[in-house]
Amino acid sequence: MSQGTLLYAQSGGVTAVINATASAVISEARARKIKVLAARNGILGALREELIDTSREPAANIAGLAHTPGGAFGSCRYKLKSLEADRARYERLLDVLRAHDVRWFLYNGGNDSADTALKVSQLAREFDYPLTCVGVPKTIDNDLAVTDTCPGFGSAAKYTAVSVREAALDVAAMAETSTRVFIYEAMGRHAGWLAAAAGLAGGDPDAAPQILLLPERAYDEAAFLARVEKVVAKVGWCVVVASEGIRTADGGFVADAGGVKDSFGHTQLGGVASYLAGRVKATLGYKVHWTLPDYLQRSARHLASKTDWEQAQAVGKAAVRFALEGRNAVMPVIVRTADAPYRWKIEAAPLSKVANHEKKMPAGFIRRDGFGITEKARRYLQPLIRGEAPLPYGRDGLPRYVALKNVAVAKKLPIWEG
Amino acid sequence: MSQGTLLYAQSGGVTAVINATASAVISEARARKIKVLAARNGILGALREELIDTSREPAANIAGLAHTPGGAFGSCRYKLKSLEADRARYERLLDVLRAHDVRWFLYNGGNDSADTALKVSQLAREFDYPLTCVGVPKTIDNDLAVTDTCPGFGSAAKYTAVSVREAALDVAAMAETSTRVFIYEAMGRHAGWLAAAAGLAGGDPDAAPQILLLPERAYDEAAFLARVEKVVAKVGWCVVVASEGIRTADGGFVADAGGVKDSFGHTQLGGVASYLAGRVKATLGYKVHWTLPDYLQRSARHLASKTDWEQAQAVGKAAVRFALEGRNAVMPVIVRTADAPYRWKIEAAPLSKVANHEKKMPAGFIRRDGFGITEKARRYLQPLIRGEAPLPYGRDGLPRYVALKNVAVAKKLPIWEG
Repeated sequence: MSQGTLLYAQSGGVTAVINATASAVISEARARKIKVLAARNGILGALREELIDTSREPAANIAGLAHTPGGAFGSCRYKLKSLEADRARYERLLDVLRAHDVRWFLYNGGNDSADTALKVSQLAREFDYPLTCVGVPKTIDNDLAVTDTCPGFGSAAKYTAVSVREAALDVAAMAETSTRVFIYEAMGRHAGWLAAAAGLAGGDPDAAPQILLLPERAYDEAAFLARVEKVVAKVGWCVVVASEGIRTADGGFVADAGGVKDSFGHTQLGGVASYLAGRVKATLGYKVHWTLPDYLQRSARHLASKTDWEQAQAVGKAAVRFALEGRNAVMPVIVRTADAPYRWKIEAAPLSKVANHEKKMPAGFIRRDGFGITEKARRYLQPLIRGEAPLPYGRDGLPRYVALKNVAVAKKLPIWEG
Repeated sequence: MSQGTLLYAQSGGVTAVINATASAVISEARARKIKVLAARNGILGALREELIDTSREPAANIAGLAHTPGGAFGSCRYKLKSLEADRARYERLLDVLRAHDVRWFLYNGGNDSADTALKVSQLAREFDYPLTCVGVPKTIDNDLAVTDTCPGFGSAAKYTAVSVREAALDVAAMAETSTRVFIYEAMGRHAGWLAAAAGLAGGDPDAAPQILLLPERAYDEAAFLARVEKVVAKVGWCVVVASEGIRTADGGFVADAGGVKDSFGHTQLGGVASYLAGRVKATLGYKVHWTLPDYLQRSARHLASKTDWEQAQAVGKAAVRFALEGRNAVMPVIVRTADAPYRWKIEAAPLSKVANHEKKMPAGFIRRDGFGITEKARRYLQPLIRGEAPLPYGRDGLPRYVALKNVAVAKKLPIWEG
């Protein structure tokens, strides 16, 4: 008689440390003699019955996962709707879980995934299928409710702060005859956590980044340009960090204002930094450079925060423990017990409290003028980028990232037509 | 009686390791009891008599310089023309050197700087002023003649290869439901060295980056799009690395085709990646993401190559030695004596052989189809990104970069009206 299997799936945008969570999940389950299946490409793989048998993976690969960015089994952007609207999909999911004797379902993602895990647990109960569902937190956006921070955020935050500090040294050296204004575009469509983390690179008001533009405050072009001019007059140059999601007072994304046509009449893909750079150059005349790190900021395992990396593993390990203890519809969350010295622990939070909520930055984290962070924000953010997560490099000068074998589990069900 | 001073100046775009060269110059000169002055903002500081007394800098700061990116004394983009056309400026420069008893002039830069150092040496001879001029190589573009490679390139190359590998893991994980094509824009207006270095992240033909676009080959949109489609069909996703300087067959920069107007009629600052992303999306319909790392790629000291870092220090040290030996109008260059194991040494090359030349990638480095690099290129590039340059981090999770005091030397001459 089978003792049951554990299904692990990744969801949404990946991070520099989501595989560290996966590694911890698999290691912890192995230690407890539980077989772990992984869904290929997240929930889609579960629906399609595309499952991976992680027991076929050598221990060295599972260990190497802990320092490999990306999503080792594939992730997806695929949101299940309500139980009523998506009933057929939820039932198919349950069929797949049943066919592979899955007793523990671990869904590693953000708000939406917490919601899906919660609904799956409800359906299982309805069908009297013994299943324990655990959400596992992950997002560079740091916008999950309840948990003090989200695995993935600290590393992206460290990447942001370090990159901004380095670029600022470059700009400072060149400003006399070249670039005066440098604009860095940070991810964050609704909450400005990553742009705020850039503030850790600064300190005194004249240190870079001198201006943060956060989605929590309406973008006011006149005020922004006046501030740029003031900083350049005083410091000689200016570094701006803008969240991709900043909006004007009427609610429109600033990035959309930069949605322009090329000479063929095709819409150009653009962003906030490009747009702001154009405005600074056109109105103030300064030479401007800008950067759009895009996926680099969330995949830069080479610059991962040790705090973040440890927390990513801790939530993975705790998720297995909670699952095996039968703690259904919960998520291991990070609870901060002290700022200095920084201390944290893992607790279980009900998925219902996490699902579909969004944590914005507290107003007390944003400086009154809107262009910077407060000491309170600094105290919160600082420990999250602390420490350097170990990373082995090869003789070729590149990090030793692992590629899993990802051996498929034989299918038992008809093909899904969903 | 003064024994003379040594003047050091940085020129052009800074790198992750130009300060390592500065640190080596100052340490070597200190060991030989020679006082080092540094020009503030490169040659402009020399013309303006804005000099820095590095002897006022604590040894810890000079040591810290070795791992601090940017240009510690400031750099500039300012090209002196011919001796005839810019006679007054050259003479002013000589006046400043004479006023501060400068006997050795070290100019740390690229082709233009080598040319300027050469002309200064010619003028000094004409005026019978005892001056030894030494060019010190630096450029992330790797386009200096004679030297096997240029300090600054190896670190930017490592940044490029690592970042592309990391982003590719992200794209691979998301491709099923999200981004299928990722485009990375590398610096390199005339030569494709940095984009080529991204090829080190790959290996077999299906590994990322699957497509390189180099300025050495004319950009052919139809061929490019066909290749993207083919790679996506086979691999499921595609990573493209494009040099900012790619041109169409008629010689126009592809980036200029992306020079577009925003809704106010202002020209938007754009680039190659943004343009290519728009074309891929419009013609093939794939979801596309793109990155423009911009200054991040040349200031990322946190990811510096140890080979590059050691060479940056070696040219600095050799420059001082050559100067004190009276070897005028030379540049310490890197000579490769073996590929595997990689061995190199420093020799002196005449500035006349370096000045105003530009080293492009040999045709034998580019694959026949133009979209990748050859084994020969790999053998050349591989050792340059090898090893991780040591970097101390603080308790705050940020690298311990130093800020120099940069104490000014009292002026002795009238203000320069140039």
